[in-house]
Amino acid sequence: MQNHDYNQEALELHKKFGGKLETVSRVKLENREDLSLAYTPGVAHVCREIFEEGERSVGKNEAKILGLEKASRDYTLKRNTVAIISDGSAILGIGNLGAYASIPVMEGKAAILKEFAGVDGFPICLDTQDTEEIINIIKNISPVFGGINLEDISSPKCFEIEERLRKELSIPVMHDDQWGAATVALTALINSLKIVNKDKAEKSLESIRVVISGVGSAGVATARLLIGYGIKNIIFVDSVGIINNKRREEGEKNGNKLNKEKLELLALTNEHDLGGGLVEAIKNSDVFIGLSKPNVLTVDMVKSMNVNPVIFALANPNPEISVDDARTAGARVVATGRSDYPNQINNSLVFPGFWRGVLDAQYAGTYKGIDNSIFIKIAKDLAEYTEKSSEGIHKNRILPDMFDKEVVKIVANSFK
Amino acid sequence: MQNHDYNQEALELHKKFGGKLETVSRVKLENREDLSLAYTPGVAHVCREIFEEGERSVGKNEAKILGLEKASRDYTLKRNTVAIISDGSAILGIGNLGAYASIPVMEGKAAILKEFAGVDGFPICLDTQDTEEIINIIKNISPVFGGINLEDISSPKCFEIEERLRKELSIPVMHDDQWGAATVALTALINSLKIVNKDKAEKSLESIRVVISGVGSAGVATARLLIGYGIKNIIFVDSVGIINNKRREEGEKNGNKLNKEKLELLALTNEHDLGGGLVEAIKNSDVFIGLSKPNVLTVDMVKSMNVNPVIFALANPNPEISVDDARTAGARVVATGRSDYPNQINNSLVFPGFWRGVLDAQYAGTYKGIDNSIFIKIAKDLAEYTEKSSEGIHKNRILPDMFDKEVVKIVANSFK
Repeated sequence: MQNHDYNQEALELHKKFGGKLETVSRVKLENREDLSLAYTPGVAHVCREIFEEGERSVGKNEAKILGLEKASRDYTLKRNTVAIISDGSAILGIGNLGAYASIPVMEGKAAILKEFAGVDGFPICLDTQDTEEIINIIKNISPVFGGINLEDISSPKCFEIEERLRKELSIPVMHDDQWGAATVALTALINSLKIVNKDKAEKSLESIRVVISGVGSAGVATARLLIGYGIKNIIFVDSVGIINNKRREEGEKNGNKLNKEKLELLALTNEHDLGGGLVEAIKNSDVFIGLSKPNVLTVDMVKSMNVNPVIFALANPNPEISVDDARTAGARVVATGRSDYPNQINNSLVFPGFWRGVLDAQYAGTYKGIDNSIFIKIAKDLAEYTEKSSEGIHKNRILPDMFDKEVVKIVANSFK
Repeated sequence: MQNHDYNQEALELHKKFGGKLETVSRVKLENREDLSLAYTPGVAHVCREIFEEGERSVGKNEAKILGLEKASRDYTLKRNTVAIISDGSAILGIGNLGAYASIPVMEGKAAILKEFAGVDGFPICLDTQDTEEIINIIKNISPVFGGINLEDISSPKCFEIEERLRKELSIPVMHDDQWGAATVALTALINSLKIVNKDKAEKSLESIRVVISGVGSAGVATARLLIGYGIKNIIFVDSVGIINNKRREEGEKNGNKLNKEKLELLALTNEHDLGGGLVEAIKNSDVFIGLSKPNVLTVDMVKSMNVNPVIFALANPNPEISVDDARTAGARVVATGRSDYPNQINNSLVFPGFWRGVLDAQYAGTYKGIDNSIFIKIAKDLAEYTEKSSEGIHKNRILPDMFDKEVVKIVANSFK
């Protein structure tokens, strides 16, 4: 199974169906009466009602947009629909292949959203990679959507796009490559620390050292959640080496500045200002989280870690170290992004339930916005659910099963 | 039935379902194997295949976009999906209520597309009414769509938006308020002329006089199709009066120029440069086509027309003259936009089959672009189908039944 070649089979499946998503009418349209309600003349009254709810909001000194959005959730597909949006600049592990090549991924996510969580997803693939243009387009197409799921947008512009859209739109915006991946990684870490008994000692969260290799979208978001969870000692390694103050200063001098996210994380981590490369970072560390490139982690590096190392080698499809090598080197818990090994860190565990929870909270009027705390809560809830399940947790089971129908509910309930 | 109040019932229907459209997976996603084909890792190969088809096109000295679009039609929802796009600037007969208020109409059209023609439609409601911004956004969101159906965009910017998009995009673009309405009007006219025996005499198409009241999107497109069909004597009346050279000249002097479309149509019509208002235009005319405002046509005006007048009073929901008044005044054939009278001129007769035909032709590689001749062909085919049906044509049956399942096939076959 490990070397199963899905390529030809995947092409044939996609060609047979002509894509994976279709739109279907929720209402019957079999006679004039049906059309008179779903379309003209009846629909005109629904249009006016939405417009007028906007005007009434102004009358109540609320933002007009809130009235328009509330009414649109009441009467249109906005209630249950999320846009899956990419510019194709960072498709899966493949790279920048542009908008058209990104369609199959976005369509697949939309299909998963519906099958797993009953949420209607629709793929939007943008034929521009300009930050301002992307922001402007998403704002302007937002009326029909209840939420915006950003996907496969390259780092660092993904940070600005998400941040700006969260400020400038009143519907929720979530970049899944950041938060989906980070939330599942934190879930996995919480349970891994239990397995290696590093969660018990006083201040253990403050004393364990976590090395994160790769400071792209998932790496940055994972660090933010780990910090929010209480982990203090994090060392970042990018393609140049450990991120420390020396690199910050040199970057300022030679005009090759560390980006905003690296600077922000540097201020919160690497307390002892460690320098060097991955070899120096990994020595005496407890956890390695790779969101970088294949084969950067060696057996000797794992051997230099503290007792009972935890290795998340998440580069896809080829991890930072093979599962066999990691185990040989003494890793106690090993997770990858692959479906053919145990402990797959896959953001499909989170995004369907996330959007289910967000949309339900919006419609119920209890939605309070998105910040890091919601993802930390989801990770804690999922970790606890896995631990308390009949199979419990062990080194080959740190996450729940992706096809466990309770998972969507656990995640969605985190919004309550 | 005429005064049936659909308002409350329509609101309740929309609230119950939370809109009228849902997205559904075409493929099953029940286990890891399914996910490995529809999503990672298998989907990556589909992404690469689309990208590489673009590169191969360059190698074959074709436009890269053609390869990307062909491959996207092979492997994604682009094959069968049309965007229904509005800026909410001219919603039904209601007016400019903005993007949010337009959602129920666009969603309804998407639902009709699927139910009537098996085409997947998705509503996109734009929160901008700026022509350049609309064009730019539509171009940038076009990758996932096989076609762009523009809807409820105000005149005259709708003309520029459609014209520019047809030039700048390689997928088909159709503004349904223009061409859907115009095609059904021409279909109705072809059969009406048979009923009043004005189709037989030599040069009859050149001698009959048609008055078009309202020079918005539907009026302009109807005129273009009528001219293409062979009708020579058309008089336009807008809210000021008959469009003639005097108005053109005055407009140039006082800076209140006739717009591009009116100038273009003036050059092709009103041969004798008639002046005045609707009273002068309608006298001795054969056909009145109203795409304007309620109650502008009086009984006396109809009485001043040539023998056997044909009246299409299409203002919605209240026509230019009531059906009863038109009949009393001697109209031989009366059509409206209303579903509660015979002869409803409703663009639902055309757009579903139009998109079915376009998408099928694209996928078959036989698509040759859209111009007026295709709409004229559709009108001729539909008129002939109605005449040859078992019920034939008569004054209360100039169009086929909207729920006749053959209609979509007839329209789609016009592309063959």
